[in-house]
Amino acid sequence: MEYTISTLVENHPGVLARLAQLFSGRGFNITSLTVAETDDPTMSRMTIVVDGDEKVMEQVKKQLNKSIDVIKVYDLTKKEPIERELLIIKVKAPSVKRSQIIEIVDIFRANIVDVSHEDITIEATGDTKKISALVKMLKPYGIKEIARTGKVAMARSL
Amino acid sequence: MEYTISTLVENHPGVLARLAQLFSGRGFNITSLTVAETDDPTMSRMTIVVDGDEKVMEQVKKQLNKSIDVIKVYDLTKKEPIERELLIIKVKAPSVKRSQIIEIVDIFRANIVDVSHEDITIEATGDTKKISALVKMLKPYGIKEIARTGKVAMARSL
Repeated sequence: MEYTISTLVENHPGVLARLAQLFSGRGFNITSLTVAETDDPTMSRMTIVVDGDEKVMEQVKKQLNKSIDVIKVYDLTKKEPIERELLIIKVKAPSVKRSQIIEIVDIFRANIVDVSHEDITIEATGDTKKISALVKMLKPYGIKEIARTGKVAMARSL
Repeated sequence: MEYTISTLVENHPGVLARLAQLFSGRGFNITSLTVAETDDPTMSRMTIVVDGDEKVMEQVKKQLNKSIDVIKVYDLTKKEPIERELLIIKVKAPSVKRSQIIEIVDIFRANIVDVSHEDITIEATGDTKKISALVKMLKPYGIKEIARTGKVAMARSL
């Protein structure tokens, strides 16, 4: 199963390495991970998407809660949180294919951020499903480069 | 100085822990890190923003290049790449403040993704400068939660 964990952590060297070790030491593969400073520069927020089974996940959460680097742990897996990721993708776009690609960009409400004679670079945001669908639609044109941020997630207000 | 490194890495457990160790072992603080699968599920792309001096950075790049987990290393620092990050931010928004917040959202071409009687959740994408400016504008209203993906970057086509 795929778990989405959001953590507030201390922002100093070594924290990421220790936390990544905590997951990999238990054989979890990290599907995606994002970490960046919050508005308080002493703290970072880390969003981790991992595959694994529930028992091991419970242990990892316990370990995270025990870690002195970790300020707070939120398990958003079952909470239908607000989820978004960002994609930058560069596809081959000879002039005869360009309008087809622009159509796809419009359908997905994506944006063209760079263009040359040979390629188009597109930016898009959305949930993982939407982003994966866009990648799938663009694949036949030839993907030259792709960079996804991985998911950030936040609980909804009720 | 701040460096932006983009790497293609093998997608299997332990890779992130080893690479994070490589940076923290040299005292670099990772400002932001994003890692997610590419269109080829055997590879992930990792974008790392780190602070440090040039000499140590050169050594880290050499180490990355030597690592069996690393397929390719791109130093985008001086290349004026396409850079984007994504922000989700929840701010206090009692009804009397709501229209002020909506004005800021419009100026930054951001989107409202959730709303309740007490708060508004906003999604925005842009370069680090824009995202930081938006956070600064929203701060006086009271930030309840913030999650940034950290930067993804890609070289421009010339």
